[in-house]
Amino acid sequence: MTIALEAVEGMPEVRPGDDLGALVASSAPRLQQGDVLVVAQKVVSKAEGRLRDLTTVAVSRRAHRLAASLPADPRMVQVVLDESVRIVRQERVLIVETRQGFICANAGIDRSNLGGDDVVSLLPLDCDRSARQMQETIAAMAGTEVAVIISDTFGRPWRLGLINVALGVAGVPALIDHRGHNDDFGAPLRATLVAIADEIAAAARLVMGKTRRVPVVIVRGLDTSASRSGSGRDLIRRRELDLFR
Amino acid sequence: MTIALEAVEGMPEVRPGDDLGALVASSAPRLQQGDVLVVAQKVVSKAEGRLRDLTTVAVSRRAHRLAASLPADPRMVQVVLDESVRIVRQERVLIVETRQGFICANAGIDRSNLGGDDVVSLLPLDCDRSARQMQETIAAMAGTEVAVIISDTFGRPWRLGLINVALGVAGVPALIDHRGHNDDFGAPLRATLVAIADEIAAAARLVMGKTRRVPVVIVRGLDTSASRSGSGRDLIRRRELDLFR
Repeated sequence: MTIALEAVEGMPEVRPGDDLGALVASSAPRLQQGDVLVVAQKVVSKAEGRLRDLTTVAVSRRAHRLAASLPADPRMVQVVLDESVRIVRQERVLIVETRQGFICANAGIDRSNLGGDDVVSLLPLDCDRSARQMQETIAAMAGTEVAVIISDTFGRPWRLGLINVALGVAGVPALIDHRGHNDDFGAPLRATLVAIADEIAAAARLVMGKTRRVPVVIVRGLDTSASRSGSGRDLIRRRELDLFR
Repeated sequence: MTIALEAVEGMPEVRPGDDLGALVASSAPRLQQGDVLVVAQKVVSKAEGRLRDLTTVAVSRRAHRLAASLPADPRMVQVVLDESVRIVRQERVLIVETRQGFICANAGIDRSNLGGDDVVSLLPLDCDRSARQMQETIAAMAGTEVAVIISDTFGRPWRLGLINVALGVAGVPALIDHRGHNDDFGAPLRATLVAIADEIAAAARLVMGKTRRVPVVIVRGLDTSASRSGSGRDLIRRRELDLFR
């Protein structure tokens, strides 16, 4: 039993307004039913125009104060605040709850590889929808039913280093149930759930990281086609179950 | 460019005292230089005799009190305390710092698949050493230089579901540096590190989870052979850099 992680080579530079699903369908000629495509958030944000030009940001007094204390670029801090509903920590780095519900550093905002020093990318507004749209375009163009995961690298408490996680999901489960472990500790049953979409995202980054400009990876052989589709939201721990916000 | 995740099939049931490296070398006949073997902690603990029989555990007053408040099996709580240096949270579940330095639920202690209702497995005392020993045995028996990662599934704050992570590492880096991202936020450079050993572990579990009794997975095509070997300890965030303990 083998799972293969394969780079989609030769993707063009993505620009605002591009149909990302169509670009992927053109660049990945031999897609198979059951393939899972893991797509880096950055190119989704670019295609969807989720970009901001820092030179046009009006910095509030709150952002100036925060920026001085971190320290950080006040314009960046303003954009983080604009994309957040709550600050979880403001110590060396801004850990926030984004408007999408993710807990992450700097609201997932990133400055790199955007072809302009003052342009930053924001997380897609609805990563599940972005994944579904790509799935539908690819089904129409390639005649193949694939699953799509929109991914980004997040940091973690306790453990060092970023790891790629699933923000949006279409066509694969986000969690799978391996019930029967740890029950004796009195741990709730959710402790037996495995975050399979996060593991798929993490696996795909091994290929993304190997070469520059590989924003899409095909994960083949997972055999989750019979499963109900999950949602990126399934992977967000609800506030009342979270001991660390 | 492709990375393959392949199950090592036909591993025998592992028993205390077994030479796990030898069992793997016998079961995985076509190992190649540069392969990374991801090994589930459970079989390492079994081979190393890191097991405890709950019927012989003397439960302290502290463990009884804690067990009542969670609630949980007092004998289990005692074993968790024995394997921990500090409790991080005691609310519904015990999140501890283990004697090895890991922050995880129930000190990584697990009751399942041990062929006895009252036997639990403890994390290996030194997962890097366990990984190195397997690496050396396999090099001697198979004549092939492979890397080894000892892995276990841990829960996470903020995100739901367990994910496989690297506890011990031999022959691959634990972290790789993708400098140049996020600097404008004033985030320290460690924010640009990717936890590659954790991503390899997460990838491997996709194969472990597909079938029962696949405790070892071969990750092929990573091409990290030129890299310096890391340590599982590299992946543990130092207390002074951790905002969430």
